[in-house]
Amino acid sequence: MTDIQLLPDERIDQLYSQTVKIIQSSSVFAFSLDAVLLAMFAKASKSTKSLTVDLCAGNGAVGLFFAHKTNGQIVEVEIQPRLADMAKRSISLNHLESKMQVLNIDLADSLKYLHHDSIDTVLCNPPYFTDLPKSVKNPNQFLAIARHEIKTNLEMICKVTSQLLKTNGKIYMVHRPDRLLDIITTMQKFNLAPKQIQFVHSKKNKEANIVLIEAIKNGQQTGLRIIKPLIVYEDDGQYTSEVHEALYGKTK
Amino acid sequence: MTDIQLLPDERIDQLYSQTVKIIQSSSVFAFSLDAVLLAMFAKASKSTKSLTVDLCAGNGAVGLFFAHKTNGQIVEVEIQPRLADMAKRSISLNHLESKMQVLNIDLADSLKYLHHDSIDTVLCNPPYFTDLPKSVKNPNQFLAIARHEIKTNLEMICKVTSQLLKTNGKIYMVHRPDRLLDIITTMQKFNLAPKQIQFVHSKKNKEANIVLIEAIKNGQQTGLRIIKPLIVYEDDGQYTSEVHEALYGKTK
Repeated sequence: MTDIQLLPDERIDQLYSQTVKIIQSSSVFAFSLDAVLLAMFAKASKSTKSLTVDLCAGNGAVGLFFAHKTNGQIVEVEIQPRLADMAKRSISLNHLESKMQVLNIDLADSLKYLHHDSIDTVLCNPPYFTDLPKSVKNPNQFLAIARHEIKTNLEMICKVTSQLLKTNGKIYMVHRPDRLLDIITTMQKFNLAPKQIQFVHSKKNKEANIVLIEAIKNGQQTGLRIIKPLIVYEDDGQYTSEVHEALYGKTK
Repeated sequence: MTDIQLLPDERIDQLYSQTVKIIQSSSVFAFSLDAVLLAMFAKASKSTKSLTVDLCAGNGAVGLFFAHKTNGQIVEVEIQPRLADMAKRSISLNHLESKMQVLNIDLADSLKYLHHDSIDTVLCNPPYFTDLPKSVKNPNQFLAIARHEIKTNLEMICKVTSQLLKTNGKIYMVHRPDRLLDIITTMQKFNLAPKQIQFVHSKKNKEANIVLIEAIKNGQQTGLRIIKPLIVYEDDGQYTSEVHEALYGKTK
């Protein structure tokens, strides 16, 4: 067994489609389907020397789910000490210390720790909401920072991503479709050219509630492809086979 | 019967889901599914005094298919005399002269014929391709002008649309997904805020090959919705019920 220490409100979850275990806490941070879909959507550089950076890493879910795809290194960047600590312990739990590390820093300071134009792949599951949390009376600061643009925002994420990525390096981002115009405009401002977009719909007759975006640094702003829609649930409420496989592996 | 004259290469087609008949010519212009989907996607202003303008009207297909949705007037704007003439004769063929008219003009001159800020709805099935036709040896000028940005372009269409529309007036455009970044950027430049987008996929596992966009003049650039994907064919090659209904009416 393992000697990883869990805090009182923590549990260990497993993504059953992988052997990955992950330390979670519903009062602090627990990954959602968005993280699983982002790791599934993102493509790894083939180079064994490749560097992947997971910005707004939270408890490390996206990087942990992406780890089996790359032979290179993964750096998790997370501003909240408690979440960065959860990520570190999950890395140990999965014996991925030789492949993954955590930087408990403001992503705005990334260039102090990582070289300009050195990164092959950026993964990002950022805070979705521009507004501050409505409940100011008794806010949960952990969740508020993870969900709302309090400590960072789209502009800063795209700026830092553009600084970090090599030319032709790629960012994979998951976000909400209602921010799409903002995302596209901000990416373009920082020379990130969206190349593939996939929309995720809870059911086939519902509007999209998640968007997955691949953009390339210094790419031409033409030739965008909208890949097939990803549907999460069948009409009867069961996961579609594609999402079931992402969560639980092949056998449905 | 009717006394509409047909030219030698012309035929009369019917959109079976409606009673609309339309003069077509495969050597000059024949509507495609795109026109049907645009007319289906577009919403009419409820006012009986509403004005709809169909830019790049071709043989009038979009306006003719949209006519049953509105109690107001429709103006078809088409630069090519031969196509504008087909549209005029189709309007007569359907006894829609009191509701529809054709302006055989360059859309850049629209403001000479229509008032600023006077239009409720703009429909547009524009030329899709920025490049000139590859075959310069024996080009079909009718089709080349309809398909390629030779006589107009996205910039001019959005500029004129913004001039024509009332505040909160809407444009509905059909285009190719690979132009989406360009469309969004150009719309925003002319104060047209994309509000709803629908992607059309030939099959559910294929990437989108058509995009339908609703944008609102002087609207806020937030709150974009990506509505449910429209799938054209079932896996077995039959039309999906939604598209079958659009083409042939309710009974499949």
